[in-house]
Amino acid sequence: MNTTELRVDTSRRRVADLTSEVAGWCQGRGDGLLNVLAPHATAGLALMETGSGSEPDLEQLLDRLLPRDHRYHHQHGSPGHGADHLLPVLVSPSLTLPVSGGRLQLGTWQSLVLVDLNADNPSRRVRLSFLAG
Amino acid sequence: MNTTELRVDTSRRRVADLTSEVAGWCQGRGDGLLNVLAPHATAGLALMETGSGSEPDLEQLLDRLLPRDHRYHHQHGSPGHGADHLLPVLVSPSLTLPVSGGRLQLGTWQSLVLVDLNADNPSRRVRLSFLAG
Amino acid sequence: MNTTELRVDTSRRRVADLTSEVAGWCQGRGDGLLNVLAPHATAGLALMETGSGSEPDLEQLLDRLLPRDHRYHHQHGSPGHGADHLLPVLVSPSLTLPVSGGRLQLGTWQSLVLVDLNADNPSRRVRLSFLAG
Repeated sequence: MNTTELRVDTSRRRVADLTSEVAGWCQGRGDGLLNVLAPHATAGLALMETGSGSEPDLEQLLDRLLPRDHRYHHQHGSPGHGADHLLPVLVSPSLTLPVSGGRLQLGTWQSLVLVDLNADNPSRRVRLSFLAG
Repeated sequence: MNTTELRVDTSRRRVADLTSEVAGWCQGRGDGLLNVLAPHATAGLALMETGSGSEPDLEQLLDRLLPRDHRYHHQHGSPGHGADHLLPVLVSPSLTLPVSGGRLQLGTWQSLVLVDLNADNPSRRVRLSFLAG
Repeated sequence: MNTTELRVDTSRRRVADLTSEVAGWCQGRGDGLLNVLAPHATAGLALMETGSGSEPDLEQLLDRLLPRDHRYHHQHGSPGHGADHLLPVLVSPSLTLPVSGGRLQLGTWQSLVLVDLNADNPSRRVRLSFLAG
């Protein structure tokens, strides 16, 4: 199994497109399964179209589903931070993708994104684990 | 790694049960992990019981969580199509399942379904990637 | 591929932390991918921080998203049980995690939990499948 860890700066974006970086790392690795893991308790990974307006749509959806108010038992950090801790239950931080001939197998309109609503910690890691087959 | 691609017609159903077709493809392949990927930006995959009313329940849930109205920045396609583009964030289009002795390991009441609310494109593909172990 | 099945008693908890048991089973297995599957139609698996209030926050979130009332077509079991059947669409019962040198690769604040709102069946199974690489 081959592994690496990416660094992602989320200080200026809540939805960060990782597609080209991840696809680049897969090049030359042949066939196998790639696991992508964000080892954080307030971030998730998703496959979605980027660049056509869905990023702000996603932020609004998450604000509706996970309002940043005082309802939460989890009360560390900024007000509403309890919402951030529920994000990874709805948007899992683990995602597995097929790789064929060193090419990450995504659809034409699919991008791999890190979703991170938590403004308190802008320095994120993403772990890639490739199992050849 | 062994791969294939299924074709799924979603013109008359928003929740399509893929279980028997996927399980059939796994037969004779021994032990390993199967990745299932819907390479589309407006579809997801889920494990759920089918045939007991949960399909229309799921459609109503998604209509509540993702209303088909004019709130979305993503405005290509039919009115409300922006909702379809958020579906795969909540219902991931990638799912990995264990296979043992050529048998897809699902619980008695679990079926593998493709969820696709987008009526504009009824021709869908699902990619299967089997990594033996 | 190595497999085992855990038994989980959910009679007194709706969010059960499986981390130490799963990590223990991975010890000594080297590098690979671990698939975790809850073979049930009303349970899901998630990565989240435990012990800081997010468990009751999650129960409240799911009660909001999936109200236990009479709206559901799926009407077997206790009143509102139709809600339980939608849980695995939002919180998938399949999760894949990397293992490196026999260590389950989770972030410091991540725990692996079984989410099960269904009080009718307190005896749950979780299947572990490890593919070495």
